[in-house]
Amino acid sequence: MKRVALLLVAVAAVAALVMFTAPASGNTNGEAAPVFGIKIYPGYRDWRLISVAHEEGNLNDLRAVLGNDVAIKAYRAGKLPFPDGTIIARLAWAYVPSEENNKAFGRRQSFVPGPQPEWYLQFMVKDSKKYAATGGWGFAQFDKDGKPANEAMHKTCFPCHEPAKAIDFVFTHYAP
Amino acid sequence: MKRVALLLVAVAAVAALVMFTAPASGNTNGEAAPVFGIKIYPGYRDWRLISVAHEEGNLNDLRAVLGNDVAIKAYRAGKLPFPDGTIIARLAWAYVPSEENNKAFGRRQSFVPGPQPEWYLQFMVKDSKKYAATGGWGFAQFDKDGKPANEAMHKTCFPCHEPAKAIDFVFTHYAP
Repeated sequence: MKRVALLLVAVAAVAALVMFTAPASGNTNGEAAPVFGIKIYPGYRDWRLISVAHEEGNLNDLRAVLGNDVAIKAYRAGKLPFPDGTIIARLAWAYVPSEENNKAFGRRQSFVPGPQPEWYLQFMVKDSKKYAATGGWGFAQFDKDGKPANEAMHKTCFPCHEPAKAIDFVFTHYAP
Repeated sequence: MKRVALLLVAVAAVAALVMFTAPASGNTNGEAAPVFGIKIYPGYRDWRLISVAHEEGNLNDLRAVLGNDVAIKAYRAGKLPFPDGTIIARLAWAYVPSEENNKAFGRRQSFVPGPQPEWYLQFMVKDSKKYAATGGWGFAQFDKDGKPANEAMHKTCFPCHEPAKAIDFVFTHYAP
């Protein structure tokens, strides 16, 4: 009995540790995304907020854009182009109504993050030499389990960002 | 001439400092909000992300919810009630279409932060003794210039949060 109890305590401790560390680091299984060879950056969920957005249409998501220290410093200085070392993380969640909030408001008005879609996590990484052919940026997309999207998908990133050339290919502005 | 040049350098240096520090700390003019006596917390814009949301209706805003270290630790541990020292910051911006993004998508689908509304910045501060009469929480609201809302407005905070008693009066869940 004592041995079983000890085992249970050990299992609970490991479970608590996993629960605590998982949200901060993402499910980093170490697999690099194709084309640009980018892996999930540990600790990205601790980065500071750049902005938020809602995309309607096929995406129908709520999103948050976070930046590493280099990114935040450049945004706040209003400095373009972004320096090498800039990393921008884009998180997305399904756009779902919150029944809990709506009850408090007395009307259907509140939309919050739901499950993580296939395009849950994206990175833009500035390295003007390594990624010279794509405006100095590398791109990567992962699902919630850390699985990268395929090569074909990654080839669509830069063409879609090209219209934003005047603002160094980054659509997101800093929200004060 | 030399003195004027030096003065210009000094003015530019101060301006650069203000530009750089303002977005991180908010326009903290030091005025405490009524009822709960809460001031704007310097550096709140550097806090980590809890979640995002869109409110329709009269608010019609996009919002981000940030937490200090105590808040983030409690959220990730899934621990209720929140411990004393928890501070949650809610930022809101007008919900506006992004013409720039819509051009890239080829359709009207992208909504981003616009100007800061009157309810730009709110705090919930956990102090189970000081705020015992309101579930252990103090509440505060400020506009973008750091001006607190009036007393009548602050008296509406707790009644609106009361339906969320089962989740320690906090509507926002952690977005993974």
